[in-house]
Amino acid sequence: MYSFKNDYSEGAHPRILNALVESNFAQVEGYGKDIYTLKAADLLRQKLGHSDVDIHFFSGGTQANLTALSAFLRPHEAVIAANTGHVLVHETGAIEATGHKIISIEVSDGKLTSEHIKAAVEAHTDEHMVKPKLVYISNPTELGSIYTKDELKQLSYCCKDNRLILYVDGARLGSALCAKDNDLALSDLPNLVDAFYIGGTKNGALLGEAMIICCDTLKTEFRFHMKQKGALLAKGKLLGIQFLELFRDDLYFELANHANNMADILRREIDRLGCKFLIDSPSNQVFPILPNYVIARLQEKYDFYIWEKVDDDKSAIRLVTSWATNETAVLQLVGDLQKIMKS
Amino acid sequence: MYSFKNDYSEGAHPRILNALVESNFAQVEGYGKDIYTLKAADLLRQKLGHSDVDIHFFSGGTQANLTALSAFLRPHEAVIAANTGHVLVHETGAIEATGHKIISIEVSDGKLTSEHIKAAVEAHTDEHMVKPKLVYISNPTELGSIYTKDELKQLSYCCKDNRLILYVDGARLGSALCAKDNDLALSDLPNLVDAFYIGGTKNGALLGEAMIICCDTLKTEFRFHMKQKGALLAKGKLLGIQFLELFRDDLYFELANHANNMADILRREIDRLGCKFLIDSPSNQVFPILPNYVIARLQEKYDFYIWEKVDDDKSAIRLVTSWATNETAVLQLVGDLQKIMKS
Amino acid sequence: MYSFKNDYSEGAHPRILNALVESNFAQVEGYGKDIYTLKAADLLRQKLGHSDVDIHFFSGGTQANLTALSAFLRPHEAVIAANTGHVLVHETGAIEATGHKIISIEVSDGKLTSEHIKAAVEAHTDEHMVKPKLVYISNPTELGSIYTKDELKQLSYCCKDNRLILYVDGARLGSALCAKDNDLALSDLPNLVDAFYIGGTKNGALLGEAMIICCDTLKTEFRFHMKQKGALLAKGKLLGIQFLELFRDDLYFELANHANNMADILRREIDRLGCKFLIDSPSNQVFPILPNYVIARLQEKYDFYIWEKVDDDKSAIRLVTSWATNETAVLQLVGDLQKIMKS
Amino acid sequence: MYSFKNDYSEGAHPRILNALVESNFAQVEGYGKDIYTLKAADLLRQKLGHSDVDIHFFSGGTQANLTALSAFLRPHEAVIAANTGHVLVHETGAIEATGHKIISIEVSDGKLTSEHIKAAVEAHTDEHMVKPKLVYISNPTELGSIYTKDELKQLSYCCKDNRLILYVDGARLGSALCAKDNDLALSDLPNLVDAFYIGGTKNGALLGEAMIICCDTLKTEFRFHMKQKGALLAKGKLLGIQFLELFRDDLYFELANHANNMADILRREIDRLGCKFLIDSPSNQVFPILPNYVIARLQEKYDFYIWEKVDDDKSAIRLVTSWATNETAVLQLVGDLQKIMKS
Repeated sequence: MYSFKNDYSEGAHPRILNALVESNFAQVEGYGKDIYTLKAADLLRQKLGHSDVDIHFFSGGTQANLTALSAFLRPHEAVIAANTGHVLVHETGAIEATGHKIISIEVSDGKLTSEHIKAAVEAHTDEHMVKPKLVYISNPTELGSIYTKDELKQLSYCCKDNRLILYVDGARLGSALCAKDNDLALSDLPNLVDAFYIGGTKNGALLGEAMIICCDTLKTEFRFHMKQKGALLAKGKLLGIQFLELFRDDLYFELANHANNMADILRREIDRLGCKFLIDSPSNQVFPILPNYVIARLQEKYDFYIWEKVDDDKSAIRLVTSWATNETAVLQLVGDLQKIMKS
Repeated sequence: MYSFKNDYSEGAHPRILNALVESNFAQVEGYGKDIYTLKAADLLRQKLGHSDVDIHFFSGGTQANLTALSAFLRPHEAVIAANTGHVLVHETGAIEATGHKIISIEVSDGKLTSEHIKAAVEAHTDEHMVKPKLVYISNPTELGSIYTKDELKQLSYCCKDNRLILYVDGARLGSALCAKDNDLALSDLPNLVDAFYIGGTKNGALLGEAMIICCDTLKTEFRFHMKQKGALLAKGKLLGIQFLELFRDDLYFELANHANNMADILRREIDRLGCKFLIDSPSNQVFPILPNYVIARLQEKYDFYIWEKVDDDKSAIRLVTSWATNETAVLQLVGDLQKIMKS
Repeated sequence: MYSFKNDYSEGAHPRILNALVESNFAQVEGYGKDIYTLKAADLLRQKLGHSDVDIHFFSGGTQANLTALSAFLRPHEAVIAANTGHVLVHETGAIEATGHKIISIEVSDGKLTSEHIKAAVEAHTDEHMVKPKLVYISNPTELGSIYTKDELKQLSYCCKDNRLILYVDGARLGSALCAKDNDLALSDLPNLVDAFYIGGTKNGALLGEAMIICCDTLKTEFRFHMKQKGALLAKGKLLGIQFLELFRDDLYFELANHANNMADILRREIDRLGCKFLIDSPSNQVFPILPNYVIARLQEKYDFYIWEKVDDDKSAIRLVTSWATNETAVLQLVGDLQKIMKS
Repeated sequence: MYSFKNDYSEGAHPRILNALVESNFAQVEGYGKDIYTLKAADLLRQKLGHSDVDIHFFSGGTQANLTALSAFLRPHEAVIAANTGHVLVHETGAIEATGHKIISIEVSDGKLTSEHIKAAVEAHTDEHMVKPKLVYISNPTELGSIYTKDELKQLSYCCKDNRLILYVDGARLGSALCAKDNDLALSDLPNLVDAFYIGGTKNGALLGEAMIICCDTLKTEFRFHMKQKGALLAKGKLLGIQFLELFRDDLYFELANHANNMADILRREIDRLGCKFLIDSPSNQVFPILPNYVIARLQEKYDFYIWEKVDDDKSAIRLVTSWATNETAVLQLVGDLQKIMKS
């Protein structure tokens, strides 16, 4: 049973483990003040082309989101997010648990626009309602779609105009930046957004996300919030070492490219079979619509999520590729799919 | 500069890393539902001699504490802890951030007694005050002292009588259980307490704590709380694999024994030099009282915390040993101390 | 300028003030343990025909809602509410501030059905999502619509089946129970719902809402939650005295009937003028759709909210009546409206 | 049975009720935007001699404290309070429920000094601990002691030096300002503290506390916090009308003076009987130490709290006077006490 269920059912890239093994016997400072973590932060600042961003490492995405959002907001301030937003549906109310409402915006493709944001701001008129203060987007979105540089600029201007914080959940940021249609560079982000995180867990790390805080007023005393939320690892070097390895050369992007290439094969070949897709996603998630009997047959050999019922006969499934996805397995799935559909 | 600053400035035991490397290429379920994590939980249940406890793995102690305590308590219920309790002073108000007051009890040796608890319960008489509901202790305490089996029994009876939850922070539980004077077995704990965690980070793991929930009513829907607090690692197998290795044979106890042995040498030799100790601690933390000029000289070659000013001329320092502490380094420190004091 | 803006821009019914004056000089227990409050609770239990409900008095609706909901829920549990629900849009995130997500259900008439609830329960499948636990409805709804006895029964069965708490916000409960189409009795409520409050502020009191807790497991230690949320008034008798007066005879229902009668005149006469209504609301809120120029003219003499744009030329306005609404003013508004529309 | 149990077991001063009756029939804006509330705020600004303070009205002290403190603090910031502080022991963890730790300082007379504050600040050294940010004091304290102008100045300087917010709980502020030894004027407070509230409930109002925010950065969007905490009364005029009446002339101070005079008689006469006092309190709370058999006899005719056991034979009781305390009752208690002690 080969799994296309998600991009975290794999282990870490061997170079990551190797880096951990090699650095194992040094005595270092705890809680992320070690030499590896400091170096990793410096390296990321270089790659981002911004020497003045603050960088902190987290062990997972929900933890990163809840720590940042609760640190950035006052009690009456709220988050604006697409109805598909990860914080809205798949984090067990983690943001609300820190006291903040998330305003849900109905979208079809996972993406927010400045029109959405303006409408949300205008709908909140006085102290009987929460005050929208932070816009949460994911790139790629939970549906695999990505923001163009121009779209992100529009969001950025809109947020500045409305004194809103723009925050990007980059759990799969590598896949977005390496997508074929993408025109956004990693180094564009600090110019356009107030804070974002670069996901490691879903792109070859054992665990780890790098939070980049670009806006000065959001930087103060951030480590207090991390500690309070249980996000400061005692052996924090564990995270620094991994990001150092991922960004020492282009490993991070190589891994994302591999995942995207595997997804491209799936998209191309499934399209060739005449199937439609739930959404046009250029990143490492593919959402083909298949007859239910085909899905049942595929499930005998492959693991994946049935994403959504489309009609009585058909459903969309989600296939996720990763740094570790085997091309042979991809081709086999495509071949099996062809056989089932022709039988 | 050799560090006796704490037991998390070291890496992981080589067998831990090896286990991670060997299990790296399997595709597994995410979020702690993988085969390694399930096996680790089963193994721990065996070692505990209780097949009906629930087991969950966390990436750190503060995260474990805040998730458990907030899951166990209703909004008006409070925690009772010694004034030295880790949750009270060194977790940046993590428990209060989930809405719960911690009632601080003044103690001299880090340990709570049933008298302390009864007094706290009696002082809280009505709905104008919080309701004490959970007793938080650490074993060993933050001062290195440990609870005897009889002391823990007294606490256990007292908590049952007063309908209080008894919770043990076991960040350094290995060291307590392997201390010379200890008469408490790992398998005693489920009989005496409602929940506790077995610390991995400070005893040879890369990261990881195993939460054991013994009381049935505390078990329900615990994974919801973990997810909400950002404590479910996507690649959860990372934690299971480590605990599997630590408890597959007696590695966990071997490592704790080594740390204690190194501390014993320190205690014995420093005592021989005629120094007093701030507290009689039988575990891997030693608190000798030294003249300030001696401390200053020691600091040239060794890293450690100055714990507390004792009088104008003397202070207590804290020396912490770990699985990785080098006996040569220990003897060298003792030798250097002797030289400084005789010079 | 006569106001139809809301039902709390008026003072208290004279009998309420009189009762406060008459009881002013007795020394009584504080914090709602006085003789008046105890009597008021007994009286309400009689009127409800249930001797075993717990009753607590609050100074306002948001306070009542946030205290009850946070007392009833564990951290990972969520509220289901219509998208028009007061807790969702007009309480500045009060529920989220206590840590709980509200799941918004799109409805057209302000009312939830068991189908809505089942769908919400089914959509929340595992620990990566919040757990729906409490259904919040208002009767009448924020759009003035009311639940029939049968509709409430369906909700009640559905909640029992799904182990959900059913909670009714009764800020304007008097108006619902006195509406022409209503077939629900005050004494039906304890049989059908787990907790609800009877609104006083919007029906003749100076301030005050009576929370009725019917479900035994929700009763424990409720006063702790009230105190913690700042909801226990030191001079709590202030609330008891008012409810004693409202329910001593049928004053509460007389006042609601008056408000409804005034709304009936508005409905009947505006209908006669050929206007449509945004929604068919049988209670003390009326939502006529009027041409914008008519609205502008009306605003010269009357105060009310423009509720919603209907098209480029027309909007719905909200007219609210109360115990104090003057029939002369109602007829004058109708007359003025007639004149404007015919001119 | 005459009660000296507290100053909120009485009703409101007749002028207060009269003002409510007289203003009853006007239609006004809701939620504290009515003409009475605006006038009351203006009047208070005049009396305070500061035209630039923001003023908001609350229905009770716990509500005022929890709303202000949670509005003023970021999640990792903590409150410093005396161990007797009302927020620390008698508000059911209301502040912690909003996420903030209160650092308890052991004091003997209820009062904090700048030395206490400096020590607390110095003890909190890094991100593993909360960050002290707000100093909470009560004037008079919970033990009836008061701050001199000079003491408050010292606290004020110390807070400015350490970038701490200074907040005064003035539940009984009238009594402090009217105490014989007092040299602090109401108009001094805006110069020395960042925010404080003037208590109405315990000084003749039906309910109501006036929050004065002096520091500009604490003013922004305060009404959002009030609404979120359930503290905006729909019929907010109820609070404005009362403060207008209390401060229209010197009623507020007359009432406090009466309470203090009654307490002075108690102090003088009990002292004459040779009794000691637990604390030298110049305000409306008196803490005589009496033999237990005397207390038992007194309890037959008077209601009061036994405050603290002093030794096996003696306890301190608390006698509280108010605007409504009857001089005859005071003299009778003194007479009865004399008889009991001489018998």
